[in-house]
Amino acid sequence: MRMKSRICQDAQKIEQFLLKADTGFLGLALNNEPYIVPLNYVWFEGSVYLHGASEGKKVNFIKENKNATFVISKSEGTMVSPIPAETDTAYLSIMLFGEIQIVNDLREATKAMQALLDKYVTGYYNSPLSLKHVERYRSSLGSTTCIFKLRPNEITAKENIIINDQLYYPGRNVSTE
Amino acid sequence: MRMKSRICQDAQKIEQFLLKADTGFLGLALNNEPYIVPLNYVWFEGSVYLHGASEGKKVNFIKENKNATFVISKSEGTMVSPIPAETDTAYLSIMLFGEIQIVNDLREATKAMQALLDKYVTGYYNSPLSLKHVERYRSSLGSTTCIFKLRPNEITAKENIIINDQLYYPGRNVSTE
Repeated sequence: MRMKSRICQDAQKIEQFLLKADTGFLGLALNNEPYIVPLNYVWFEGSVYLHGASEGKKVNFIKENKNATFVISKSEGTMVSPIPAETDTAYLSIMLFGEIQIVNDLREATKAMQALLDKYVTGYYNSPLSLKHVERYRSSLGSTTCIFKLRPNEITAKENIIINDQLYYPGRNVSTE
Repeated sequence: MRMKSRICQDAQKIEQFLLKADTGFLGLALNNEPYIVPLNYVWFEGSVYLHGASEGKKVNFIKENKNATFVISKSEGTMVSPIPAETDTAYLSIMLFGEIQIVNDLREATKAMQALLDKYVTGYYNSPLSLKHVERYRSSLGSTTCIFKLRPNEITAKENIIINDQLYYPGRNVSTE
């Protein structure tokens, strides 16, 4: 399966996918040990905001090393070829690189939480999130989550555009091409 | 958005998801710089086999540091709550940890390529992949891909099981709960 690396420079396509992808993959490293955490996220005001546990392996890594990468990717199907080695995948993937930090500012944390709710439960609440709710939630005993922010200093995108008549579907067979 | 970490110990569920997930995320690290590559893969004979470019950042990292992680994850929806901070995600994610290596053995590489084709273009070819095809393909001028193998020495899985009547859908509103 070939995964051709083609640089995507379509800023609108990148922005749209950053806004819509469901799960992002946060990559961290410590002492040459890599670690990946799948997370909900929102792309908001030029940063990725993540909501996650405030303790555990992820935070232990972040405390020691703020270098982070964040990746979203979608496959749009497999493209067939009579030559097996030419089998190919249509995809779009975006990689962000930068430093990750915990958001301590209550207003920024509230805006990010609001953006997360707007993305994942669009229209569910009738009123905007209050600072008070976030403050109470964060300060309550047993609170174990916080907001993280990754403002990328580099974004790269790769894609392999689908060729519709080569798309594999169940039942497709080389002898009938 | 809470991402509760609940350990999943259902070996069959883990195996099934490893066999079926479409895209996996390979995590590497070098000098405290993390790197993630989304890739097609196959879970075959207790290892993850990946097919990817034989040069570039991924291979540069692997040459210096074989520690790798490999993650698959799926979201099964967002679960609502009248309390915004209790919004929750149903998911299943699996993390593998181990060393990654390039597969040099022709028979093993051919079996892994066959397993990849069986997964992504099931039934498309009428005859199994020949050693000759893989050998010719690998030795041909301009060949820029190879097979990688990650035999995990640790597998962890986390899940948050869906609660159907809490599932968000477009149009759902807190005032009608």
